Formats: sequence, C-alpha cells, structure tokens
Amino acid sequence: MAGQRRETPGLKVELAGEDASRTEVRIGDVVFGAQALAVIAGPCAIESEEQYLQAAVAVAQAGGRCLRAAAFKPRTSPYSFQGLELEGLRLARMAREVTGLPVVTEVLDTRMVETVAESVDCLQIGARNMQNYELLKEVGMSGRPALLKRGLAATVEEWLLAAEYLLAGGSDQVILCERGIRTFETATRNTLDLNAIPVLRERTHLPVVVDPSHGTGRRSLVVPMARAGVAAGCDGLIVEVHPDPDHALSDGFQSLDAEGFRGLMEAIEPVARAVGRSL
Amino acid sequence: MAGQRRETPGLKVELAGEDASRTEVRIGDVVFGAQALAVIAGPCAIESEEQYLQAAVAVAQAGGRCLRAAAFKPRTSPYSFQGLELEGLRLARMAREVTGLPVVTEVLDTRMVETVAESVDCLQIGARNMQNYELLKEVGMSGRPALLKRGLAATVEEWLLAAEYLLAGGSDQVILCERGIRTFETATRNTLDLNAIPVLRERTHLPVVVDPSHGTGRRSLVVPMARAGVAAGCDGLIVEVHPDPDHALSDGFQSLDAEGFRGLMEAIEPVARAVGRSL
Amino acid sequence: MAGQRRETPGLKVELAGEDASRTEVRIGDVVFGAQALAVIAGPCAIESEEQYLQAAVAVAQAGGRCLRAAAFKPRTSPYSFQGLELEGLRLARMAREVTGLPVVTEVLDTRMVETVAESVDCLQIGARNMQNYELLKEVGMSGRPALLKRGLAATVEEWLLAAEYLLAGGSDQVILCERGIRTFETATRNTLDLNAIPVLRERTHLPVVVDPSHGTGRRSLVVPMARAGVAAGCDGLIVEVHPDPDHALSDGFQSLDAEGFRGLMEAIEPVARAVGRSL
Amino acid sequence: MAGQRRETPGLKVELAGEDASRTEVRIGDVVFGAQALAVIAGPCAIESEEQYLQAAVAVAQAGGRCLRAAAFKPRTSPYSFQGLELEGLRLARMAREVTGLPVVTEVLDTRMVETVAESVDCLQIGARNMQNYELLKEVGMSGRPALLKRGLAATVEEWLLAAEYLLAGGSDQVILCERGIRTFETATRNTLDLNAIPVLRERTHLPVVVDPSHGTGRRSLVVPMARAGVAAGCDGLIVEVHPDPDHALSDGFQSLDAEGFRGLMEAIEPVARAVGRSL
Repeated sequence: MAGQRRETPGLKVELAGEDASRTEVRIGDVVFGAQALAVIAGPCAIESEEQYLQAAVAVAQAGGRCLRAAAFKPRTSPYSFQGLELEGLRLARMAREVTGLPVVTEVLDTRMVETVAESVDCLQIGARNMQNYELLKEVGMSGRPALLKRGLAATVEEWLLAAEYLLAGGSDQVILCERGIRTFETATRNTLDLNAIPVLRERTHLPVVVDPSHGTGRRSLVVPMARAGVAAGCDGLIVEVHPDPDHALSDGFQSLDAEGFRGLMEAIEPVARAVGRSL
Repeated sequence: MAGQRRETPGLKVELAGEDASRTEVRIGDVVFGAQALAVIAGPCAIESEEQYLQAAVAVAQAGGRCLRAAAFKPRTSPYSFQGLELEGLRLARMAREVTGLPVVTEVLDTRMVETVAESVDCLQIGARNMQNYELLKEVGMSGRPALLKRGLAATVEEWLLAAEYLLAGGSDQVILCERGIRTFETATRNTLDLNAIPVLRERTHLPVVVDPSHGTGRRSLVVPMARAGVAAGCDGLIVEVHPDPDHALSDGFQSLDAEGFRGLMEAIEPVARAVGRSL
Repeated sequence: MAGQRRETPGLKVELAGEDASRTEVRIGDVVFGAQALAVIAGPCAIESEEQYLQAAVAVAQAGGRCLRAAAFKPRTSPYSFQGLELEGLRLARMAREVTGLPVVTEVLDTRMVETVAESVDCLQIGARNMQNYELLKEVGMSGRPALLKRGLAATVEEWLLAAEYLLAGGSDQVILCERGIRTFETATRNTLDLNAIPVLRERTHLPVVVDPSHGTGRRSLVVPMARAGVAAGCDGLIVEVHPDPDHALSDGFQSLDAEGFRGLMEAIEPVARAVGRSL
Repeated sequence: MAGQRRETPGLKVELAGEDASRTEVRIGDVVFGAQALAVIAGPCAIESEEQYLQAAVAVAQAGGRCLRAAAFKPRTSPYSFQGLELEGLRLARMAREVTGLPVVTEVLDTRMVETVAESVDCLQIGARNMQNYELLKEVGMSGRPALLKRGLAATVEEWLLAAEYLLAGGSDQVILCERGIRTFETATRNTLDLNAIPVLRERTHLPVVVDPSHGTGRRSLVVPMARAGVAAGCDGLIVEVHPDPDHALSDGFQSLDAEGFRGLMEAIEPVARAVGRSL
C-alpha cells in the first residue's frame, strides 16, 4: 500500500489515515457512506411512462432509496435504442414526485450536463466514460453529487484518479460504483470485482456502491453477489429492476422484477446486520 | 445457462437439476457441502516442527476444522524454498495427532501420489497443476478426497472439466477451491472471483471453498473477502495462518497470525448465520 | 467468422465479400488503404513552437506522411500537463505550412469538434473515448476523416460498432488504429494485438494502422513491432517522435528521436516490399 | 528493463549483456537461434500411420525442418481423444526415418520422460504444464533439448523462471515458444503476443519460436501472423499441418493442409530476408 500511495501523493480522494473521517454523500436526503446502506434501483432504461412509474413504485415499496433514471443510453451499436432523452428526464421528475425518491441519471455529453443537473439529483458517469475527462470536469463543477462507475479495464488507481477529476472541481460529493471488470471468463458478462471494496476502503474516504446487475449480467447471480458486496463492506447497491424483464428494451436478462427486488432487499438485510450495518 | 450446459453434456460434475442433491465431501470426519461451513487453515509451507505445531494448535483452538499441510511447494523460481517434502509429511501426521484435525497436502507429481495419499487425509491439486491431467487421473484413483484449485486463467467450464478428470476415476469426493484469477488489476495479487460461487452452485453438485489469502495476496483483505465468500454461498474457506508471518519462508504478507485467525472466525460466524449456515 | 458476422448484420463497416473493394481514406492528399503504406508521426504532445517544429521537420525529412499534432491530452491525472489546447492548434497549422504534411489531432469534447475540424486534416478519437458515443456522432458529421483508436478493453466487435457510429454520420473516411490492449502482462505497458490486423481485414473495408509506441510503451520495441505490424498487413503506422525524448513532458520513454525515426523508416521498407507493399 | 532484471539476478536464462552470444539449440542437426530460421510442423495429433506419414512427407517436401509428433494429448475433457501414446511414439520414429527430419514430442508425465527421451529428438512442455515444476526438472535432466511453451496466463518473467528450472538441470538446450495468451478478446482463440519476441531478445540468450496455429486458433490468420512473427525477430515457427484438416481429430480449424503449408513457407521467405534472416 505504501508504494501504491506514493504514486498519487496528496490526492483529494485519498484517505488521510486510518482514523480519518469518511465522506458522506447525499443524493437528495439519502446518505451514502454512513452506517445505513442505501439501495438505488430502477430499469436499465426509461422506456415509457407506464413502465417507469411501475418500476419506480415497486422500488419505493420494497425499500429502495433512490431511483435509477436512465434517459440517455450509451449503446454498443448505433442502431440500438438510445434512450428517451429529454422525455426521459420528464418521466424521471414525475417518478420522483410520485415516489418521493431522488433520481440518478447518467450523462453522456458535456453539452447536456447543465440540463441534466437541473432535472435530477445525482449525475452518473458510466463505465465507458470513466476516462472522458472533459465530462468529468463538467460534472465536477455541476453542483450535483456524482456516481462514478469503474471502467471495464480500469485499475483502482486509474479509477481514483478519475474521481480526482471530479473532486478537483471543488465538491467531495462522489460515490464510486464497482460494476464488473473485463476478464477472460465468459460464464459471467463481466467479473464483479469485490476485492475493490476493501481496497478502496483503505485508500479513499469516498463511499462505494456495488452493481451486481451489470457486474454479473445474469439475474440469478444478483442476490448472492449483492449479499457478498454487502459482506465485503460496500455502502450501498445499484440494481436493475424492471416490471417485465422479459420485454425490456435492454438488459432484461439481468433485471429483477418487483418480486425479485423485494427478495433482494430481504436477502441483504441480515447480511448488513451481520457486518454492523443497517438498511 | 442452457447453452453452457450443452457444451458439457452428461458430465459427472454436473448438477442434474435444481432439486438434485449436493455431494458431501468428507476430509477425515469433517464434512464439506452440508449446512455447516468448515475452515481449512495453516501456514503456506511447513517450515519446522515448532512453526508447524504452533500454527496447527492455533488453528484448532480457534475452530479450524482441517489443517493445510504444505510439504511440497511449487515455486516460481527453482532457487526458492521447495518445501520439507517427506519430512513435511511426517510433521503433518504429527500435527494431526496433536490436534485431532485431518490434514490436506498438495501433491505435485504422479510419482508421489501414493506416498502422499498414505500420509494425509486429502490431496490438493494446486492452481498451476489444474490442467496437469496425468496428475488428476492419479489423484482421482488414489482413494482420497481431492481439493482442486482453480487455475489462474481457467474458465469455470475448464475447471469443471478438470474436476471431471477426477470424477472419471470413480470417486465423487472433490472440493473445488476458488483462489483468484489473473486480470489486469495490480492492486491485488490475484482477483478473487466470487462470481464463480453462485455460478458453480447452478452447475455442479460439488462443494466449493474460497481461498481469500491467495485470492487477494494481502493480509488486510482476507477478513472482508472471507465474509464476502461466505455471503456468496461458499461451503468453506482455506486460509493461511502462520505463528509469525513476518518471518515466514513464503507468502508471509498474506498470512494471518493466531490472533488474526481468531478474528476471522469471529467475523465470519454472523455472516454464515445471516445466509442460513453455521460454523 | 460466419457466426461473428451474424452478430452485426448489414453494418456499413462490414466487408461485403472477399472481392469487395476496400475503402481508401484521404488525410489531406495522403491515402490510407492503397498499395502504399503511410506513416503518421510526431510527439506525444505539442509542447512548444521549437519542440514541435523540430519534430515535424524530422518527420517530414525521414519520409513521414502525416503529423501527429496533439493539442489536447487526456491524462490519467488531472494534475498532469493537459496540452497547449488552442495554442497547440495554431502550432499544428504552422507545422503543416512548414512541412506540407497534413495533421491529425485528437479531439476530446463534443464542444470542440467544430473548432478542431476547422484547424486540422483528421480528427483522432483516443482509446479512452472509443465508446464516447456522443463524440463519435459529432466527429462522424464533422466532414473530416477520423482515426479511431481501439479501446484498451474493446473487442474487435465493439471497435467495429464504434466505427459504425462514425459511418452512420454519412462518411466512410475512417481509419482504425490498433494501439494495444490491456492484459495481465507487465513487461509491456500494453499488449499490441497484431492478431487484430488480419481479423479486421476479413471483416471490414476500412484501413488499419498500428501504433507500436503506445502499443508497447517501450522505445526499444517500436521498430520490431512496427515491422511485425507491416508484415501482418497493416496500411500504415502512427509513431511517437520527439526531438529530445528524455525531456518530453509525456511518454518520452516510448518516443523515438529523429535518428531513431529514420532508422524505423529504413527498417520497415524491406518488410513492406516483402509483403507486396511500398512506402 | 533494469528494474525487471533486478527481479531475477544471476539467472542462467539471462542475457549477460547486449553483446553476449546467443545460444544455439540443436534438434537433431537442425539449429535454432542462428541466422537461418527453422520451421517445425505436423498435425495437432498423430492419428494413424497413413495420416501421420502423409503429413510428415508434406512438411518435408515444403521445407519444414522438424516434425511435430504429438503422441500424448492434454485435452480439456477426459472424454476427448488422448493421443495414440506408445503407438504414436512408434509412428514418430517411422516418420523420422521416412523423412530424415527430427521429431518433437510433448511429454505430460514425469514417469514418461525417459521413454519419450529415448524415442524422439526434442521434448515439448505444453502451455498447461509450463509451471509443472516436477516435469520441468525431469526434462531438464533428460539429455534432450526442450521446447517450452508459454502458459496461457504466464508473464514473460514467469516463463523465464520456468525455463530456469530446465537450465538448472545443467543443459542450455531450451527453445521458448510463444503460443498465445488469454485475454478478453474472443475474435481469436488466444491472443498471440508478438511483443514477447523483442522482449525476450533483450532478456535471454535462448531462441524463440512462434506458434501461429494455437496462437490464433484460425487457419486464415496463420500466414499473416507467421509473417509478423518472423518480422518481429523470432528464430522459427511451429505450425499445425494436417493432410485433411476437416477430418482432424483435434484442432482441424486451425490446421493448414499440404498446399497451405507450402504457401506459408513461400510467404515467410521474403519477410525473413527483409529482416536479415534466411530459411
């Protein structure tokens, strides 16, 4: 560790010492980084008013604390569904009003940062944009908290330096999100790297959440890996929940339905207690 | 999953269906694959009578159920300590007598399988030998249970096929051990792949244990990753414990001392209970 | 291959058949994708008028056909040199005037695409931005040819789909650039994946260039890997050349000096001839 | 490099300095590591007398200098064809008599080293056994030259240390063989890592050959990657050649037929000349 720290002397992301205080990040009135864990959930993409409100209500009823509100979708193919965009932002605000939960929206383009920041409670930087430094600079100055996903091939060191771009803008309201790395293994879509949780706890004061949906890419693995993430010491989860996963426009195979999400919340609660946390 | 199963039709390692019974593997009188978890522990290598008996007693006193008894060491360099070999087997038997715990010893060479099988309770196949098929065939016919570590770059599919070499010998007494894979990340020595735990539970009836010591290569990560492994559904752990890690002949930086091991056992117990298991 | 093609039916990047014609891409009057190879060279970053003109003249004198003109630098740390930006564009134009060679400049931000497109002959998308789809869309509509670097963890499939974002804008003037992928190996900074060259030749009509400087990260490997790239069938190279590598502000350890670049040009010429190409 | 060398001080595999002489390894009367390149070729497995003699004659007629003579096959599944074993050794000797070419045979088990060493001219250690140290020790003392394939996830450092196990036995007659590493890329079966060629030339005096058949896993990539390997500075190739690849018992999709192998030999000759070598 000593050697690793020397690589990044004096960074704002760094934990000053073992007794140093940890940063609490607030999305609306939900706190990440305190004793209680918080769960962010919602569909991979906002598809329609009906689909999104159903999902949002299901998340709220089961104890989710924030809504995934994906209005802009970075898709591997230009011919795939790219999100509802501004109409998606409108539905995100509607869902917030209906449920009372704050919303988290990915932003893809420096030109949209201001618009998205005005509409939602937290700006997400996706894995593909983790080293889109111009976007990081804009989001760091947006006045909103940020959720920074780890790039598919990013080391913890590079991830922390990407977070430093956000902190360099003056705010410390940044949540890190482990969402799986790319390895040779094909049994899972990505390899959720839970080792990163305790590594980050030694190196940074920022809270860390785990995304078992993208991290594994398979619905049946979401609950066990969510439990494992909680046991490893994460501060929260971000989970894909869709009212009808089999008809989702994207990533249905890794989404839970409403009942599945209730099951997840029940499954993680005793694990959280076992490691001295609450939900 | 359907597609993955088709790759390996009719394998003995495969779980026949969701309701199919799981195999219980016995090392001495310790059961792996039942409701209770079991922990294997001991130093990276048997170095001397004093060192090994101290470690063995510490393991037994803290609730460890089996002893790591490494008499033969596959080392990256030919000039590194290669283990005490036959003298190590003698000390392994002595530690078994003193503690009453069964012992697990890695075997490296087809010519030694019979000798090692006569001395110890379980034969370990190390990560570097996971595809040493001649060794697998011999161990599969040895009459002893086997602990099969995953290769550093082995897919779950290849790992199961390596286990099939053991089962093809007629015995089903095989424990799989996740011990980290090789990725681009350098913050940890290996990337402990806990995703493999629920993947294996869907595909095989064999029990699975987790090695957080080799999997992370850093002492401070052993407890959180052991907890995470238990939460993900593993059937046991294998952990490096040394009476004086700072003076170990190998891998001291990832070994717990006696007090650290007691702390580990206490840390995993509530997590085991939270997921419906006991210690 | 058949299976792989089915994944991406009817893409504009795809080679229609073995006899289909290949696209020639023009940067200024330099053609990529014809019988003659073309080499792009210049420093990792434009640092000053003196440094850049020296480098540019050295490139021109040794037979380089285009200039790397890096005015904006995406750096892992926010505290590293970020490029001369607009002043860099001015120096790029000056170097073009002095040498007569067209210039290639990386663009990092959708808001800068128009400005950069007005100043230079080709827009580069860096590895970190390969899946910055908003940037790809803007560059695809800029009217300038594009050089698309492969992401550090991008499969060939994903790389072609990123190129499709550019082609969807209406132009086919896209050059693909292999610049190394991320693997477990630490002897080289990245693993230059020359397998991608013949794979791409089977799948796409677009020309492919190789970057042995970033691909290996070590000066002494640039010439042998440049030769290997030419032998594998690439359409050109992009190489880092600095008048004084030991005092470069970035990546000096992988830059050739003027003499080294002349040596490179001499070293690749017979290999080009051996595979039926010219320089 | 300085730092890397310090990791392995005083190893027998190391190149003492830039002017140090390189080791020439002799398989029969064929020299590896001198000015002339040498090609080893033959089917993935010896299947029958007819198949093997046809292949061997085709290899000899096209200018191959050594025969692959695979009598023992380490297969991922225990139910796949495992080789003709002792009957394969008999056919290997027959092919040597017919063609006059020396033969190279993989050995899988310490107990077979003596038998195989008596029958053939060179012992191959396969990728899966690169860290089977007991096998390395036996082969190092066998009196035969060895061909050491790189493990799928082995760093260059670990590969050299595996070679050191062979050299520690007293002989320096060891050829290193790059055969592809495991990465996230799925367009090729493995990622042939040609960067390793110039890296090895800086670090070791041992000759290096390239296996484009296993390295890529696709017949159409064998010629371009063979050319690239020669341009990168390798001392020879090892190539799969089968009289009827579509009916091969293993790996037919990456094997050349007799005509394809003649084409390969013609394709590499001008590249060899371009880099100052001959065939």
